[in-house]
Parts: sequence; C-alpha cells; structure tokens
Amino acid sequence: MSRFRDATTVEKLAEGRYAAELDAGYDISGALNGGYVMAVLLRAAVDADPVHLHPVATSAAFLRVSKPGPAEITVEVRKTGRTATASRVTLLQEGRPVVDAQVTTATLAADAEPDWLGEAPPPLPPIEQCVGPQPSDTDRGFTDRVDMRFDPATMGWLDGQPSGRPEMRGYFRLRDDDYEPDAFLLAMAVDALPPIVLNTGALGWAPTVELTWHMRALPAPGPIGLFGSGRMVRDGWFDEEVEAWDSAGRLVAQCRQIARVGRKNG
Amino acid sequence: MSRFRDATTVEKLAEGRYAAELDAGYDISGALNGGYVMAVLLRAAVDADPVHLHPVATSAAFLRVSKPGPAEITVEVRKTGRTATASRVTLLQEGRPVVDAQVTTATLAADAEPDWLGEAPPPLPPIEQCVGPQPSDTDRGFTDRVDMRFDPATMGWLDGQPSGRPEMRGYFRLRDDDYEPDAFLLAMAVDALPPIVLNTGALGWAPTVELTWHMRALPAPGPIGLFGSGRMVRDGWFDEEVEAWDSAGRLVAQCRQIARVGRKNG
Repeated sequence: MSRFRDATTVEKLAEGRYAAELDAGYDISGALNGGYVMAVLLRAAVDADPVHLHPVATSAAFLRVSKPGPAEITVEVRKTGRTATASRVTLLQEGRPVVDAQVTTATLAADAEPDWLGEAPPPLPPIEQCVGPQPSDTDRGFTDRVDMRFDPATMGWLDGQPSGRPEMRGYFRLRDDDYEPDAFLLAMAVDALPPIVLNTGALGWAPTVELTWHMRALPAPGPIGLFGSGRMVRDGWFDEEVEAWDSAGRLVAQCRQIARVGRKNG
Repeated sequence: MSRFRDATTVEKLAEGRYAAELDAGYDISGALNGGYVMAVLLRAAVDADPVHLHPVATSAAFLRVSKPGPAEITVEVRKTGRTATASRVTLLQEGRPVVDAQVTTATLAADAEPDWLGEAPPPLPPIEQCVGPQPSDTDRGFTDRVDMRFDPATMGWLDGQPSGRPEMRGYFRLRDDDYEPDAFLLAMAVDALPPIVLNTGALGWAPTVELTWHMRALPAPGPIGLFGSGRMVRDGWFDEEVEAWDSAGRLVAQCRQIARVGRKNG
C-alpha cells in the first residue's frame, strides 16, 4: 500500500496532457511541498518520453502556491535523442501555471560504479540518535507523510539556538508507506529539509523560487541521507544545496535551490 | 569598444520576440560557447521584464549546437511579481529551438553585505603565475575573445598529466574588450572553463546537457576568479560546479551543469 504512489499518479488525457489530483496530505503550512509537486509532474514527463526512464535534470520555477485538488500537466517534448530527451513541463491549476519545469530524461545504468567520486560528507549520527516529529493523532500533512530523523546538531533552532550556519541534515523515509526509493521519491526528498536558514536566525516559511536537481544514480531501498548546506545569505536570497546519499552509500541526487529568506528574528 | 556588447545585442521585433546575430568569434571547435549563447538570450529576458534588472536564476537546456549567424529569441513572461519575474526563453535558429531556458529576473542590491557567507575557496595563485593561451595571429574564436589565466595545478592535462580530480580554476576576463563585468559577462564566465573531466583522463568536447546558474551579486571591475569542481563522474555523466568570485572578493555567481564525458583516453 502506498499513499505516495496514489498521490503522484497521473492520468494521460492526450498526447502531452495529463490529469492529477494533488493530495492535501503533502501540505506544509498551507502550501503543498514543492518536492511532492515535482514528483507528480515528473511522472508525466517520464511517461511522455518514449525512450528514457529517469529524470536526470529537473529545473523547476515555482510560480504560485500549489493547492490540494485537481491539476493538469502539460509536457512538450522539445528534443529526443539517443542519450536524452528534453521536455518543457507545466503543472496548472484552475488554468494557471503553478510550476514550470524543464526536464531532461535519460536512462541511468543501475549498477555502474563511479569513475570518480568526491569525498562523502561526514556521516550522519546513527538514526536512533536523530530526532524528528513523532506520529500524531491529528494529520499534520507532510510532517506525517515522511519520517524525518534529523541530526541534532542542526536542530538547535527549534529551541532558539540555531547553529549559526545555513545547514540541515537528516534521514528521509516515508512513514507508513511501502513505496521504495526511486526517481520520484528522490524528487520529494531533495526539497524535504526545513529551510537551512532556520539555522542562521531566519524564521518562518522560505519560499523556493527556483530549484534544479540532478538524479545521479538509482537509490537503494532504505532511508536516504540528506545533507543540506548553503554558501551565502544576502539581500533576502539564499542558496540551499542538498546532496542525497542512499543507504548503500551512493550519491544519488544533487540539488540546489534559490529561495527567499523568511521573516527575520527580532 | 566592446565586441562582447555588439555580439550579444538583441533587437526587439515585437513583444517577446527578439533578433540576434550570433558572432562566429565565440566559437569553440565548431560550436558557439554555451555561456555566450546564454548571454544573448539573457539580454532578451532582461529586456522583456518591465520591472527587474538581473537574471538571478537561469536554467538552460542545450538542445542543439549553436551556429554563427541569425537567431531569434522568444520570451514568454510567465509571472511577474514584486520580487521576481519568471520567463520561458527560447533561442531558435532556422526555426528550430537550440536552447530552452527558464529565467527568473529580480533586482539585486548593489552594495549589500552578506548576512552569511561560507568559506572562500583557497585563493588562486597570483595572475602572473597563471598560464593561458597567448594572443595569436590567427583568430581562434572563443580562445581569443577571452584572456583566461589558469591555475597551473589544474592544467597538467595539457601535458598528459591530469591531476586526477575533476577540477579547473583560473581568472576570466575579456581580451581587447572594454566591457565591464555584469550579469551578461557572468553568464559567459560560468561556462568558460575547459571541462573539469579533462583532469580525470577524459579527452575532447564534453557537451553540456543542462546548466543552471544563479547570480548572487553585481561583479566589480577586474578579472573574475572561476573555481570549477565536480562531485561524481559516472555512467558517462558528470556534474561541474563553478563558483565565480569577483576582484573585490565577493561570491557573484554559482553554477552547476550536468554534461556528458568526452571520448575516453586509451
């Protein structure tokens, strides 16, 4: 049984046109999680590619707040080649574009070893030493769809003691959901961390303006390690970089988003 | 006098439609430099935004090889807000899309200090200790438009001694051109380094599939330091991350591209 699978299902209406029903269960404070919405639109993008299997590059511009309920997705294949297909994808609600995306699909080898791999980030603490919301009687949306376990070193902001660095790290997995990690779950994972600027004193929601992620390998079953960091907070803008490493120790996704800093402390 | 300014000029034909003449002088081995082409299409994107001045986020999908000669650029403004405008931009040649881009324009403060800034990369050697092509009697295209000065530690591949790490670093400035650094020159700078995989034994052209860069601050006059690195080479794909720091020591741009490894050595 997988709510994630159901919540990201798309129905083909015609060539390049799909319908979806966005699930209120992926809501965070009045907006659907951007990664969830990417997962939905990537289902359509991959379906529309007659050749390739994986979204290796996805750039999403978040134009409006996504709401639970019906959505339409359009996919315009711009070029298909032996190596990759490039598409323009739009998710619309009530006839208005909500997310614009450019998606490159290709087929990644399941078992290739890296020819070169940079240093892995310092390992997360064991999952039982990490912290996260416990299940609740009331449905809190996204918070209850995922079972995040955060590195305590990056969670001091919850107690008014931010680390002072734009960072956030933790394990990501679904809660009460048998879905195994794949490209669509990675799409949700790379946007699942709380805004890293909560650790530099910012408060509240930090809207993503643009997010680009690259799928680098097929994720193994098990929790996904998310390593979020940033290079600069300036003039109301910050970058958030997320690397996703699977339970087999492979770099499976890289992501950077540019976002607006939420309301400042004090 | 600025050839770069002339070579990136666009002429407005109608609302959202521009004409350009791509300059053969920005050619590298039969294809125009992707950063140069981005600079041209960003002129159109910024012109089409009635409010904002700077391309803070640009995602470009490189569909076909750009050729010298006439091009048309279409700009579809998808949403204009107080903070930012989102546009879809396409550069076409002979009626076919060559580069698709999503561009977010906004206005960056000229003089804001960062609220938080990560560690700067280790400094480049002094420019006089760096190496690069000398001026030539024959026009070698892009190689003669720019005056790149590379960190010798990243140039061993020229002598068959690659460093073994996907990396490339150097100073970027225009040759014989009075143009001062700005958003459009940054667009060219972030794609100006030779492919970082030349340092892991790859040979030849490494075609960019998708490139996203973020403008973070207005660059000061003077050479721009480019710091290129990568996280993984796998299955024919590699990521190339470039940070651009200006002569005043400010982080002015961040870029990541996903590209295909060129023909392998041996």
